[in-house]
Amino acid sequence: MNQTDQLCVNTLRFLAVDAVEKAKSGHPGLPLGAAPMAYVLWDRFMKHNPAQPAWVDRDRFILSAGHGSALLYAMLHTFGYGLPLEELKKFRQWESLTPGHPEYGMTVGVEATTGPLGQGFAMGVGMAIAEKQLAAVFNKPGLPIVDHFTYALVSDGDLMEGVCAEAASLAATLGLGKLIYLYDDNHISIEGNTELAFTENVRLRFQAYGWQVITVPDGNDLGLIEEAIRLAREDKERPSLIAVRTQIGFGSPKQGTAAAHGEPLGSEAAEATRQTLGWPPEARFHVPEEAAAHFAKALERGGDCEEKWQAMFTEYQKQYPEEAAQFHNAMNGILPRDWKEKIPLFGAGAMATRESSGKVMNKLAAVLPQLVGGSADLAPSTKTWLDGFAAFGVAQPEGRNLHFGIREHAMGSIVNGMALHKGLIPYGATFFVFSDYMRPALRMAALMQTHSIFVFTHDSIGVGEDGPTHQPIEHLASLRAIPGLTVIRPAEANETRGAWIAAVERKKPVALVLTRQKLTTLDQLANEAAVGVAYGAYIVKDAPQKNPQLILLASGSELEISLKAGELLTQQGIRVRVVSMPSWELFDEQSEDYRRRVLPAGVPVLSVEAGITLGWQKYTGAQGDSLGIDHFGASGPGPQVMEKFGFTAENIVKRALALLK
Amino acid sequence: MNQTDQLCVNTLRFLAVDAVEKAKSGHPGLPLGAAPMAYVLWDRFMKHNPAQPAWVDRDRFILSAGHGSALLYAMLHTFGYGLPLEELKKFRQWESLTPGHPEYGMTVGVEATTGPLGQGFAMGVGMAIAEKQLAAVFNKPGLPIVDHFTYALVSDGDLMEGVCAEAASLAATLGLGKLIYLYDDNHISIEGNTELAFTENVRLRFQAYGWQVITVPDGNDLGLIEEAIRLAREDKERPSLIAVRTQIGFGSPKQGTAAAHGEPLGSEAAEATRQTLGWPPEARFHVPEEAAAHFAKALERGGDCEEKWQAMFTEYQKQYPEEAAQFHNAMNGILPRDWKEKIPLFGAGAMATRESSGKVMNKLAAVLPQLVGGSADLAPSTKTWLDGFAAFGVAQPEGRNLHFGIREHAMGSIVNGMALHKGLIPYGATFFVFSDYMRPALRMAALMQTHSIFVFTHDSIGVGEDGPTHQPIEHLASLRAIPGLTVIRPAEANETRGAWIAAVERKKPVALVLTRQKLTTLDQLANEAAVGVAYGAYIVKDAPQKNPQLILLASGSELEISLKAGELLTQQGIRVRVVSMPSWELFDEQSEDYRRRVLPAGVPVLSVEAGITLGWQKYTGAQGDSLGIDHFGASGPGPQVMEKFGFTAENIVKRALALLK
Repeated sequence: MNQTDQLCVNTLRFLAVDAVEKAKSGHPGLPLGAAPMAYVLWDRFMKHNPAQPAWVDRDRFILSAGHGSALLYAMLHTFGYGLPLEELKKFRQWESLTPGHPEYGMTVGVEATTGPLGQGFAMGVGMAIAEKQLAAVFNKPGLPIVDHFTYALVSDGDLMEGVCAEAASLAATLGLGKLIYLYDDNHISIEGNTELAFTENVRLRFQAYGWQVITVPDGNDLGLIEEAIRLAREDKERPSLIAVRTQIGFGSPKQGTAAAHGEPLGSEAAEATRQTLGWPPEARFHVPEEAAAHFAKALERGGDCEEKWQAMFTEYQKQYPEEAAQFHNAMNGILPRDWKEKIPLFGAGAMATRESSGKVMNKLAAVLPQLVGGSADLAPSTKTWLDGFAAFGVAQPEGRNLHFGIREHAMGSIVNGMALHKGLIPYGATFFVFSDYMRPALRMAALMQTHSIFVFTHDSIGVGEDGPTHQPIEHLASLRAIPGLTVIRPAEANETRGAWIAAVERKKPVALVLTRQKLTTLDQLANEAAVGVAYGAYIVKDAPQKNPQLILLASGSELEISLKAGELLTQQGIRVRVVSMPSWELFDEQSEDYRRRVLPAGVPVLSVEAGITLGWQKYTGAQGDSLGIDHFGASGPGPQVMEKFGFTAENIVKRALALLK
Repeated sequence: MNQTDQLCVNTLRFLAVDAVEKAKSGHPGLPLGAAPMAYVLWDRFMKHNPAQPAWVDRDRFILSAGHGSALLYAMLHTFGYGLPLEELKKFRQWESLTPGHPEYGMTVGVEATTGPLGQGFAMGVGMAIAEKQLAAVFNKPGLPIVDHFTYALVSDGDLMEGVCAEAASLAATLGLGKLIYLYDDNHISIEGNTELAFTENVRLRFQAYGWQVITVPDGNDLGLIEEAIRLAREDKERPSLIAVRTQIGFGSPKQGTAAAHGEPLGSEAAEATRQTLGWPPEARFHVPEEAAAHFAKALERGGDCEEKWQAMFTEYQKQYPEEAAQFHNAMNGILPRDWKEKIPLFGAGAMATRESSGKVMNKLAAVLPQLVGGSADLAPSTKTWLDGFAAFGVAQPEGRNLHFGIREHAMGSIVNGMALHKGLIPYGATFFVFSDYMRPALRMAALMQTHSIFVFTHDSIGVGEDGPTHQPIEHLASLRAIPGLTVIRPAEANETRGAWIAAVERKKPVALVLTRQKLTTLDQLANEAAVGVAYGAYIVKDAPQKNPQLILLASGSELEISLKAGELLTQQGIRVRVVSMPSWELFDEQSEDYRRRVLPAGVPVLSVEAGITLGWQKYTGAQGDSLGIDHFGASGPGPQVMEKFGFTAENIVKRALALLK
C-alpha cells in the first residue's frame, strides 16, 4: 500500500471509529476490516459523479452489511457527496443524516436502505436486472447509454440468510455478469467464530450457483483487491463474488473477535488502535490534507465520466429521438399521456379478479414499456404473464417477464431493487398466503417508499381445496399493519382496473389482493367502480333518500354477497347502504367530509370480509359489528368453505338484523 | 422391479390419481413420479409401527412437497395407518381426513403440516436435532432408546426456497448424519422446466454445505433407490441428499410437463395412464389383494420393531429408573412437580425484560432439562444462552444451546420440528423486527399448535440508535393477527417470569416480546404481576373505591410511563385505573365477568403501546383513544426517540385529559 492509499484507508477507518465512539453506539469492526476493499472499489473503479449523485448511468453501490454504516458515511463525506463532517459527528443522533443503518432517501448517495441482512444482496440483483433489461432495450451500436456495474459489500450474515441464497441462484441463471459483490470474509459473527454455525464452503456454493468466485487472501492488500475486481469485471457472463479475507476490527485490540462487531471500541482500545495504525493520538474526525486532496479526485473523474456520458446521450437523442424521450420518461417515472384511457372498462360477466388483473396488465404492458415483472413460479395461477413479450434472461435480456422461481422473498427484494434503479415499474406475484415469505421485503418497500407493485392472488378461504396452509386469514390485517404500504382488494373487474391504475400512479408500494374465484362484474356501475377505488371506499348501492339505517361495508369478494344481502334486507323494508371498501389506506387519505358522507356518524356498520376482523372496529365503531373469520380455514370446495364459515347473503342478513336490534 | 413391487407402486399411484380425479382438484404429477422412492423407503427401511403411530422411537417421514398429499394418504391407507379408503374418496372435501395438504393433528401418521415449500425440509432438520440431542442425553451403552432416522421427500420447490438453504447449511454444520432426504428431481415446476429459473448445480451446492449427495439416475429403479438409501444410512456424520431423477406425471400423457403438476389428469389422460402402466381400466381406488397382502407386512415388521424397543426400554427402566422416568416425562410433556416455585420473584430494581427473561430461562433450565434452544446469532443481545450448558453440535450433542446462525426463518421451522418430535421444549430467539423473516414458520406453529417458544427482544422504537430498520412498529399487531399464536409482552421482571411460566405451561406456540431497555421492577406487586400475566390483563393501580373515570391500558414498556401518568392525573383529582395488558389472547380467554371487572363498560380507556394502534379499538371502544405510533421510527438514543414520538407520562396525561373532555 503506498502512503497516500494508506492514509486514505485509515482516514475512512478513523472517521468511522470516531463516529461510533462519539455516538457511544455502532459498529466499528466492519469499517476497520473492510475499509481497504471499499476504498479500492471507489478509488479505482466506481463510475459515479458525487456532484450528481442521481446520474442515471452511475455504478450502483450497496452496503448490504448496513450495520457498517459509519464506513459508508465516511466514504460519502470524503468522496465528495456533500455529507458534512458535522453529520458524521452526529452519527446515530436524532434528525442527523447519519442514522444507525443507511436509509434511502435520507442521505444522498445511499442507494438502498440496508441493515436487515440479505436485503441489500437481493436488491442489488434487482438493480442488475434493471440495468441489463434497460441496456437491451435502449442501447444502440456505439451508444451504450445504459452500461454500469452493480456492486455491493456483503457479510457472512448476508450469506447465511435464505433470501441471499435465493437471489444468488437466480442471479446466475439470469447471467448477471455486471453484478460484483465484495464479501467481507472475516470469520466472525455476533455469537463468535463462524465455525459455530457456518462451516459450509461458501466459495463452492457460489460456484454451484454459477458465479465466478475470486479469493483475496489478504484484505489489506490493495493490489490483490484491485486485481480481483478487474477479473470480476472481465467476466461478462457470470456474477462475481470476491471473497476478501479480512480481520474484523483490524488494528484494534479486539481484532478478529466478536467484541469488535457491535459496540464502540471504548477510548482505551480506540487509543491503542490509533497507535497500531499510526494515527495521530489526538486526531478526531480527521481528514489529512493529502488524503482530502486524493479523495477530491473522485469529483474530477466523476465529472469527466458524466460529461462523456452526456455527450453520448446527446448523440443518442439526435440519432434516436423517440427512444431518447422514452428513456428519459422511464428513468424519471413520467407516464405517457392518455395511458389510462387505453385500458377499457369491463362489461357484464363474471371473472376472477386475478383474471381481470391479467387482462388489465396486458393492456398496460402495451402502453407502459416500463412494466416488467413476474411471478414466483405461479404465473399460470397469478395470471401475471405479459403476452407477446419474452422471458428475461441470457437469451432475451429485453424480455419483460421474469421467472423468479419459487423464491418469494428474493422476488420481493429484487422488485425493490429494480424500483430503486429507476427506469422500470416492477411487479412480483405469488399466492397471498405466501406474502409471509416476502414480508421483510414488503417492509423495506414501505420504508423506502419504492414504486414496487406486489400482486397477491388466491386471497381468502375461497381458495378452497388447498386448505388452511394456502388460505389467507390474517394477511389483509398484517399487510395493512405495515405503515406506508397501500393494500387494495378490488371487488370485481372494474375495481381491479382502478386498482392497477392506482398502483401505477401512486409511485409508492402497493399490494393488490385478488381472488382465485369468479366474481360478477359491476357492469352497470363500471365507471363508478373504476373511479371509486381511488377513494378507497364508495357507495355501490344506497338507501332511499341516501338515508341508511344500516351500512354493509365489504371488501373484495364479499361485496357480491353483501349486495345480495342488501337486496334481501331492502325487501324487509330496511334502508341499507352497501359500501365497497377496497382500500383502507386510500380511504384514510380522503377528506373528512368525504369519509363522513360514505360512513355517516351514528349509522351502524357491519363490515364483511373473509379475513380476521382485527382493525375493522375503526370503521364500524362501537355500535357496529364485523363478519370475518378469526381462525384458520379448512380444505374443501371454495364455495362450500365460504358458506360453512358464514360468508353468505343469508348470514349477513342475520347479522345485520341482530345489529339493528 | 418384481411383480409385487410393481403392483404396490402402481397401487399407490392410482389411489392418488383416483383421489385427485374424484376431487377434481389436486396434484397427480408428484405421486406418479415419486411413488417408487416413497414405496422403497417405507417398504424396505422405515422403522415405524402403523398400529402405534405415536411410538416415540419411530423413524420420522415428512412429505415436504405437501402438494403430493394424495401419495401420502395412499401410503397411510395401504401401510396400515387406519386411514379408510372412504377418506381417500373424500380427498380435499369438507371435514374429510384427507385435506388438500397434509395437516398435523388431522390425519394419523402425518408428522408435520406441509405445503408451504421449504417448511418440511427445515422441520425435518429440527426433528433430527431433537433425535441427536435426546440420544446423547438418554442413550446408554447397549440401550440406544433414541435411535431413529428422519426422512423427507423434497421437491425442486423446496430446494429453491431460502429457508431450505438456511436449514441445509446448518444441518451439515451440526453433523446430522441421520437426516436423509429424497429429492424428487423432476426438472419441472409450475412455470415449466426448471432451466427457466433454477440452473444451479444442486448436487454441488449440497456438497458445499457438507452433505453426502447420492444420485439415482432412474426414479423407477427400486434397486438403485434401495442402494442409495443404504448408503445414506451408512454415513453417520453427514446428512444425505438422494437426488432421484424422476418424470413428473410418470406414465401419463402429460409425463415430464408442468401440465402434470397441479390439476387432475382428466378422465381421458387417466385412462391412457392406466393403459400405459397396465392398470385395469375399470379399477378405481383399487388395492389388489397381492398388494394388500404385501403392504400388510408393514404391520408385522412394525409390531416386531416396537416390541424389541419396548423390551429394551423395560431393561432401561430397570437399569436407569431415574433416566427412564425423565425420558417418559419429556416425551409426554409432563413437567416436574413444583417447577414453578424454583423460579424466584424479582425484588426492587430496574432491568430490561430481555435481561429478566435470561435470568428466568437460566432458572428454568435447571428444573426443565427439556428446555433447549438458541438464537439466530444474537444470544448476547437476546440473553437466551443457558449458562453451564454446552453448544449443541458434533462435539457435544448433549448441548442445550443452539447456534442457529443468521437464519431466522430456518430457526423458526427448526424449533417447530423439534417441538413436533417431542421430548424437548424448544425456543428460538432474535430481534423482534426480524420476526418478519420467520413469519411463515410462526404461522406453521400456530396451524399445528406446536409447543414452540419464540423469544423476541428489542421490541419497539426504544431500540434507539439502530433506527427504523431495527425498530418494530407493526409487529405486535401482525403477530396478534395470527390465529392461535399467543403473544405476551411483559412490562417488567415479574411479569416476564409469569410470561415464561405461561409459555411453558400452555404447550402451544407463544411469542415473548421483550425490551432492550431497562424497566422498573414492580417489586411491591411482585406476586400480582407474576400471576396477573396469566390473565392477560390485570389492575396494577386502581382508582379510589374501584370506581375509575378513566382507564390507562398499557402493554410492556409503556406500563411504567402509564403508572407515572396515573400519578399525575391522580394529583389532578382524576380517578384513574392503570391496567397492565401483556397479552390480548390470554385476556380474551378469561370469563366475561373478569374482563368486565378489569375493563368495565362505559369507562373511557386510553391504550398506550409503542406500536401501531391497529386493533386496540377492541378494548378502548368508541369513546376511547389509543396512543401509539402509526409510522416508522427513527434513529437516535432510545429515550429521546420515545419522547419525540410522544411516549411520556406528560403526553399520556394530555391525551387522557382530552379524552375526558
